[in-house]
Amino acid sequence: MSLRFEHETQTQRVRFASGEAASSLAEEVERLGASSVMVIATGAARQLAGRITGALPVALYHDEVVMHVPIEVAERARAAASEQRIDALVSVGGGSTTGLAKAVALTTGLPIVAVPTTYAGSEATNVWGLTQGARKTTGVDARVLPLAIVYDATLMVSLPVPMSVASGLNALAHCVDSMWAPRADPIDRALAAEGIRALRLGLPEVLADPAGLDGREHALYGSYLAAVAFCSAGSGLHHKICHVLGGGYNLPHAQTHAVVLAYVLAFNAPSVPDAERQIAAAFDADRAITGLQMLREQLDAPRALREYGFDEADIADAVAAILPVVPPNNPTPVTAENLERLLHAAWEGADPR
Amino acid sequence: MSLRFEHETQTQRVRFASGEAASSLAEEVERLGASSVMVIATGAARQLAGRITGALPVALYHDEVVMHVPIEVAERARAAASEQRIDALVSVGGGSTTGLAKAVALTTGLPIVAVPTTYAGSEATNVWGLTQGARKTTGVDARVLPLAIVYDATLMVSLPVPMSVASGLNALAHCVDSMWAPRADPIDRALAAEGIRALRLGLPEVLADPAGLDGREHALYGSYLAAVAFCSAGSGLHHKICHVLGGGYNLPHAQTHAVVLAYVLAFNAPSVPDAERQIAAAFDADRAITGLQMLREQLDAPRALREYGFDEADIADAVAAILPVVPPNNPTPVTAENLERLLHAAWEGADPR
Repeated sequence: MSLRFEHETQTQRVRFASGEAASSLAEEVERLGASSVMVIATGAARQLAGRITGALPVALYHDEVVMHVPIEVAERARAAASEQRIDALVSVGGGSTTGLAKAVALTTGLPIVAVPTTYAGSEATNVWGLTQGARKTTGVDARVLPLAIVYDATLMVSLPVPMSVASGLNALAHCVDSMWAPRADPIDRALAAEGIRALRLGLPEVLADPAGLDGREHALYGSYLAAVAFCSAGSGLHHKICHVLGGGYNLPHAQTHAVVLAYVLAFNAPSVPDAERQIAAAFDADRAITGLQMLREQLDAPRALREYGFDEADIADAVAAILPVVPPNNPTPVTAENLERLLHAAWEGADPR
Repeated sequence: MSLRFEHETQTQRVRFASGEAASSLAEEVERLGASSVMVIATGAARQLAGRITGALPVALYHDEVVMHVPIEVAERARAAASEQRIDALVSVGGGSTTGLAKAVALTTGLPIVAVPTTYAGSEATNVWGLTQGARKTTGVDARVLPLAIVYDATLMVSLPVPMSVASGLNALAHCVDSMWAPRADPIDRALAAEGIRALRLGLPEVLADPAGLDGREHALYGSYLAAVAFCSAGSGLHHKICHVLGGGYNLPHAQTHAVVLAYVLAFNAPSVPDAERQIAAAFDADRAITGLQMLREQLDAPRALREYGFDEADIADAVAAILPVVPPNNPTPVTAENLERLLHAAWEGADPR
């Protein structure tokens, strides 16, 4: 088969060193020549942020961080940046914190140095999001991509294990879905496979030794790759299904991902033998689905959607809502019938093999 | 072991589509909003360049391309670009052609769209080189990285098979050396492993069916990854050895690489079990060295340095010249004794296993 793809890379420096957030951050801010830094961090992360930004020329600590970045919250942050003649943004936190820094960068062009404290991955993408009332707008802009990421796995050690596992499985879903998403290219697949490998190694270690660094490092590294691959490849069948289930039936995000992924993998794998082998190798298993199931068992991951409030009677309705948003180039052609079977199996928690 | 690295990505768009160079190029130039394009191509490539640049607003075809980019050649190209108020550079050719475009971009900041016709890989790096008399200066600058690369494997079909294989083995050496080069990070290794996989598939096919596209595509894709990984990881033991042998003993570049690689791999592999497994998997072999040897046999690759003019009596002298430039973090510590054994085996063509 002919090799045909487009792939875009963006300028970004990634520094990965446990216990070195403060010094890495100082070097990155100095490299920018910044003299008036705005540190964005929630009140809860204020102490942590203070600890690693002590050496920076901080003009302002900004702690009004709200999920999904409401436009008025973004406006206040932009105004604060402008009043204080800020010349660089430093975000310390999870997806919402990085998201607010991106909202400020979007209109001001200010450079961002991101210090993530979760596995969300927003720091590795050029995607921004803003909400006005109930309406969320997202977009892609080179200005919002942090110029540098400072990864320090010691900052993750306090992330509770269940949240770590859920967030890690979400990253795993990004990797697996990147194998066949609309814009998936061979480079995305290679990075996603490396991400699967890292998450497969890291997540069981996080569970076994939450205070240890090895597992945290691998999970963090895998989450970075997941974000890079997913941002390039786009949203595949798995994420389309989860988006509908999450939005329409109020199912919990992480658990929905953890269940649905296995069924989507089993559904698509026969149509993508190369990707199947790549995923299997990354799991160090004979088959992709075997590898994923082994990991899910190790992590005691959620098994059935019915345990999370999804009603069997809603399957037909969900199928109708999902069908129109299925990526046209999904490797296994999706019909109402096979999608119904997929959702029923996920509802029931049937063995996906 | 702790995961610790720095990795930098650069902004670049890669378009990979056989037979579509003309239309891809037109889209990329339009995306730049350019209205006065300078096409850089050798006289020999003039016809090919004309064929794929017909739809562009070409103000100037520039064909003074000289190996290693002499400074006076660069100056004339810069002057021509300035006289014609050029707003974009399009290079169509191998490393020397891309190199001249980079020399112009270095001082003018003009954007480059590169159309490679060999597996040299310069199009994927931010490294420039200029020579003044016998002295070569190289440097790194974001301005010289082409904004876009247009890969079209049909342009490779006329590259003679021996040159294709030699150039492909050189790319393979970039991949393998990227596993332990001074700045090698896990992302470099993942990309290099993907490059090995592509070259392992592509090169035997190029030999078996030189006019076919499948082999050309995989070899081209692998060469791109080789350049990306090597540019990030830096020059490892293999390239240090080859640089000394090529410069000091006038050995032919490609053949030297093809021989030495196996001995460096056998030398370093025991000290890097993870990378060894990654290379082995990329070769689809039990062991890395077995995989490389199988490929070398398939390609009837050069076996011994003594067949290319290297004299046994020069080994001691070569050891003395190589030792000071060995990367301090080479996985297997290098001594005069084991380096002498390595070179002797490569001279003789002994089985590296």
